[in-house]
Amino acid sequence: MTFIEKLQSAWRNNNSLVCVGLDPDRKKLPDAVKGEKYPIFAFNRAIIDATRDAVCAYKPQAAYYAGQDADAELKMTIDYLRETCPEIPVILDVKRGDIGPTAVMYAQEAFDRYRADAVTVNPYMGHDTLLPFLERADKGVFILCRTSNPGSGDLQELVCDGKMIYEHVAVMAHDKWNANGNIGLVVGATYPEELKRVRQFCPAMPLLVPGVGAQGGDVEQVIRNGASADGCGLVINSSRGIIYASNGADFGAAAGAAARELRDLINSFRR
Amino acid sequence: MTFIEKLQSAWRNNNSLVCVGLDPDRKKLPDAVKGEKYPIFAFNRAIIDATRDAVCAYKPQAAYYAGQDADAELKMTIDYLRETCPEIPVILDVKRGDIGPTAVMYAQEAFDRYRADAVTVNPYMGHDTLLPFLERADKGVFILCRTSNPGSGDLQELVCDGKMIYEHVAVMAHDKWNANGNIGLVVGATYPEELKRVRQFCPAMPLLVPGVGAQGGDVEQVIRNGASADGCGLVINSSRGIIYASNGADFGAAAGAAARELRDLINSFRR
Repeated sequence: MTFIEKLQSAWRNNNSLVCVGLDPDRKKLPDAVKGEKYPIFAFNRAIIDATRDAVCAYKPQAAYYAGQDADAELKMTIDYLRETCPEIPVILDVKRGDIGPTAVMYAQEAFDRYRADAVTVNPYMGHDTLLPFLERADKGVFILCRTSNPGSGDLQELVCDGKMIYEHVAVMAHDKWNANGNIGLVVGATYPEELKRVRQFCPAMPLLVPGVGAQGGDVEQVIRNGASADGCGLVINSSRGIIYASNGADFGAAAGAAARELRDLINSFRR
Repeated sequence: MTFIEKLQSAWRNNNSLVCVGLDPDRKKLPDAVKGEKYPIFAFNRAIIDATRDAVCAYKPQAAYYAGQDADAELKMTIDYLRETCPEIPVILDVKRGDIGPTAVMYAQEAFDRYRADAVTVNPYMGHDTLLPFLERADKGVFILCRTSNPGSGDLQELVCDGKMIYEHVAVMAHDKWNANGNIGLVVGATYPEELKRVRQFCPAMPLLVPGVGAQGGDVEQVIRNGASADGCGLVINSSRGIIYASNGADFGAAAGAAARELRDLINSFRR
């Protein structure tokens, strides 16, 4: 099954557009897992067990593993996802971008070493640097378009020929780069007007939307401006709002409740 | 010593602007190291031993380690550099770019886990995503500006207010983002005119220049267009042209000869 087929069935079967960001910071883990040999993995496992019926995707953020010397726990986490919910796609958030032969190595990292179904990539270096990812036709490739952070306008809002840079990215992704039909775009929930523009350029493309919850994005606006005609098309990521819903021994159950609450809030605005 | 001080003394003491890219592809390693327990590290060690008197920096490309499940060998390589030539700066080529809390994790990866002196970063997401790197004032931060690959124009050549995007990056880096004086820019040798423009905007900034050798950049043009007023200012990277100079048992010696040859060629054009 390709990434996009997997995503479509997860949307349908779990009736959910929620993606859980697995971004575990060792300093914030609840005491309940601190004694474990692999505390990050133990934490993720509990979050996964509590949320897998309420989500359409998981998105481990590679930096949290790389920065904490926890590559093995990233591997264990994705292996666990494969085992317990093979029907839920895994998006490895790496935001890679490099020249061809180097990008081949990064594609190998994401798709072969870690067995992710999809990745995030950075378009700054241009189409040829995305090709090693795009050529893996069964995999999904989410290209950064309009990001959720405060300074995203520094480059993304520069205007060229009447269109902002992020709009150029959306148009190139849709019109020129999507030969294998496996592109998605990253558009932050914190910029709902921009989400609307991107949806106009790319009517059916999956949009990965970070920034609800801790970053302050408004769920209703995200659905109204970003959903595709069939009421899907969105992978709405929440990390901190779900994984740190409680810091007590009930952290798993609390994450499950937070994921279901977000799913229901989102669904209340869907057509 | 800060990164920039370290770089300046390496330029001077080794009379070299050459940076060796440590991008070892397991499939291309010479038979001489294939039987080793850590073949990538053994390969790098021989390259380092043969080149350390002729270079101003080493630049391991993180993708080659991440893609080949060789994080331990990246660590061993940088530890070996620390031990045998602590005066030569190490630029970890990671091209990271992500929202604040995530970028903190990536800064931790590069500077604490791997003990690099400098990193490469991607500006697409804006200034706030670069801050966790820039705030490490003793470290160097090379921001992608004009990259060496064929498709680099897709975004970097879009024109806004009479300046191309890569020029905007150079101007923002110089005028707005360089509070700690630790920014450098990445400008490919394959675009010598653009190198000239960037040097005009940033008269004294270190420029990391990939793309000589295998990618076809012209050394004379790079020096004429990119050197700063004192004849330095450049970190000219060669990877494949040096590390694969020979595939025989003499691969180390051949790499040393290739590095010295490139150093001398470069120096023949310096003022």
